[in-house]
Amino acid sequence: MKVCFSGGSGHSGSVIAALSRLPQVELSGFCKTYDAEKMNAIRHLNLPEYPSLEVMLDTVHPDILVSDGMFCRHTPDAIAALERGIPVFCEKPVSISEEQYNALANVLRAPNAPLFWAMQTSRYMDCFYTARCLVQEGAIGQIRMMNSQKSYQLGTRPAFFSHRDQYGGTIPWVSIHAIDWMLWICGKRCRRVFSSQSSLENRGNGSLEMTAITLMELEGDILAHVNTDYYRPQGAPSHGDDRLRIVGTTGILEVREDQVYLMNDQEDGRSPLPLRHFPRLLFEDFMHALNGGTDCLITPEDSLYSTYVALKAQEAADLGHPILL
Amino acid sequence: MKVCFSGGSGHSGSVIAALSRLPQVELSGFCKTYDAEKMNAIRHLNLPEYPSLEVMLDTVHPDILVSDGMFCRHTPDAIAALERGIPVFCEKPVSISEEQYNALANVLRAPNAPLFWAMQTSRYMDCFYTARCLVQEGAIGQIRMMNSQKSYQLGTRPAFFSHRDQYGGTIPWVSIHAIDWMLWICGKRCRRVFSSQSSLENRGNGSLEMTAITLMELEGDILAHVNTDYYRPQGAPSHGDDRLRIVGTTGILEVREDQVYLMNDQEDGRSPLPLRHFPRLLFEDFMHALNGGTDCLITPEDSLYSTYVALKAQEAADLGHPILL
Repeated sequence: MKVCFSGGSGHSGSVIAALSRLPQVELSGFCKTYDAEKMNAIRHLNLPEYPSLEVMLDTVHPDILVSDGMFCRHTPDAIAALERGIPVFCEKPVSISEEQYNALANVLRAPNAPLFWAMQTSRYMDCFYTARCLVQEGAIGQIRMMNSQKSYQLGTRPAFFSHRDQYGGTIPWVSIHAIDWMLWICGKRCRRVFSSQSSLENRGNGSLEMTAITLMELEGDILAHVNTDYYRPQGAPSHGDDRLRIVGTTGILEVREDQVYLMNDQEDGRSPLPLRHFPRLLFEDFMHALNGGTDCLITPEDSLYSTYVALKAQEAADLGHPILL
Repeated sequence: MKVCFSGGSGHSGSVIAALSRLPQVELSGFCKTYDAEKMNAIRHLNLPEYPSLEVMLDTVHPDILVSDGMFCRHTPDAIAALERGIPVFCEKPVSISEEQYNALANVLRAPNAPLFWAMQTSRYMDCFYTARCLVQEGAIGQIRMMNSQKSYQLGTRPAFFSHRDQYGGTIPWVSIHAIDWMLWICGKRCRRVFSSQSSLENRGNGSLEMTAITLMELEGDILAHVNTDYYRPQGAPSHGDDRLRIVGTTGILEVREDQVYLMNDQEDGRSPLPLRHFPRLLFEDFMHALNGGTDCLITPEDSLYSTYVALKAQEAADLGHPILL
């Protein structure tokens, strides 16, 4: 199974992480999506570089394309592969505009469209997987509210983060993780979304939004929010500070510092619970789906849907009013 | 100084808590604001009961009225006292409708209006006071985002909580604490507010909202939110689970479990910081203001403003669109 990369600075690392479990996979080449692209996730592998995506696809004829370039390239690169019948493992957000989204969804609507997944990495983290298992087992009753956080160190970002038309926005790039894990855990659709954001004090990064808050109203009157920022201090013990709190009719569950805490009739919320572990890694699960497996943590529909909601959340922030979905 | 109570089921306890420091204060009577009112905060004192507020005011001629009845009574009871020249120490929200708010603000606009304070109890908690001191000392640079939580046990609530026209809403009753502490700590005005709420799964409590999320845009592009719920499990170690997170340009400060954590160049956020302690209790500070003190933690203007923002947040939830302030 030949795998090629268009870009490789994002979660392409999830492919590398699964390689030892996938002897059938051969990494066959890459192309950059902009000149200065560092290809952080794969540059140590010294793969053959191709001058363009089209040349790579038509020379190598890969079995899988990993679309992980500048964010505005996720959709066109994915479409180029899909139209050649090549399955795509795509960095989120899979699109950065509604126009891109519609074009991609249209291609995927075709009969016998190749497999398409977004790299929703958080679903494979033990803490979020455990949270979902506990919710499904009824540990907190019915979900009534979900509160999430994404907080990142800013560090030094590629220049394209300064340009909305290349970056897409902090809501679709960062908040989408939380939007996805909330939609996934509760299994509901979003009915209305509103957001606010600010690009002030962004240390010279153009239009980059440093803070954003998204408020979602899901089916069944479930409220959900995510607050996102790039202000995590450089001296912090980790790059990110992901948090999730799920308020149910009979208990409250929290994810913080990669641990899960539960307060209900049995648990007092003071000690982290034992973590569950999904047996397959993200890219391993994608390969499993390619082989016809159906017990995966991601579906093509989910891959589109989280991006759709994130794009609407971004649009709501830009327009300044809630959007009905 | 004669103090009378109209109702006494809310934060009237803050008056009782300060009595030992205020030998000049004499508790002189109370009236109920509805028949079944339990007067939790003061019933153990066996004060004289009066058949109505007007009879009490015109018989006792108190020096201070504590307005702490059914929430729809805060404003009319306060106005009855203010119009008689009597200072009012008023439970929040000081009004539960815009009509009430305008009437109260109008009375307070008069020259020589008596002193009027809302019981913004959180300002006197060591944790929030410490947070404010640290922010003012520059511990986190400029504030860019604030994230708050109010989570309460539901328990058994008085019947009037089931009726919006008596209760006013969960945003003005519960979320207002967080709205107030965020406005107070950052010292900015709110420019736009949006909220969502739900009354589902409220255990038979009429229109009582069990969840609410409010998103505020403050001056200077500062984002702020509060998520509120009544689902804290009965077995929890405390009635409430107040939280505050303040994201600044050079650090992040958090309040949780009544402790303060700071992450910046000097602090790693792992251990709680020593708490600062404001020297006067809430009602003691009110008495200090009555005696002309100006170094208080509350002002009459603040007392109105938090309620105003909370009422607009409630209105935004009811109408389903953001409101410009």
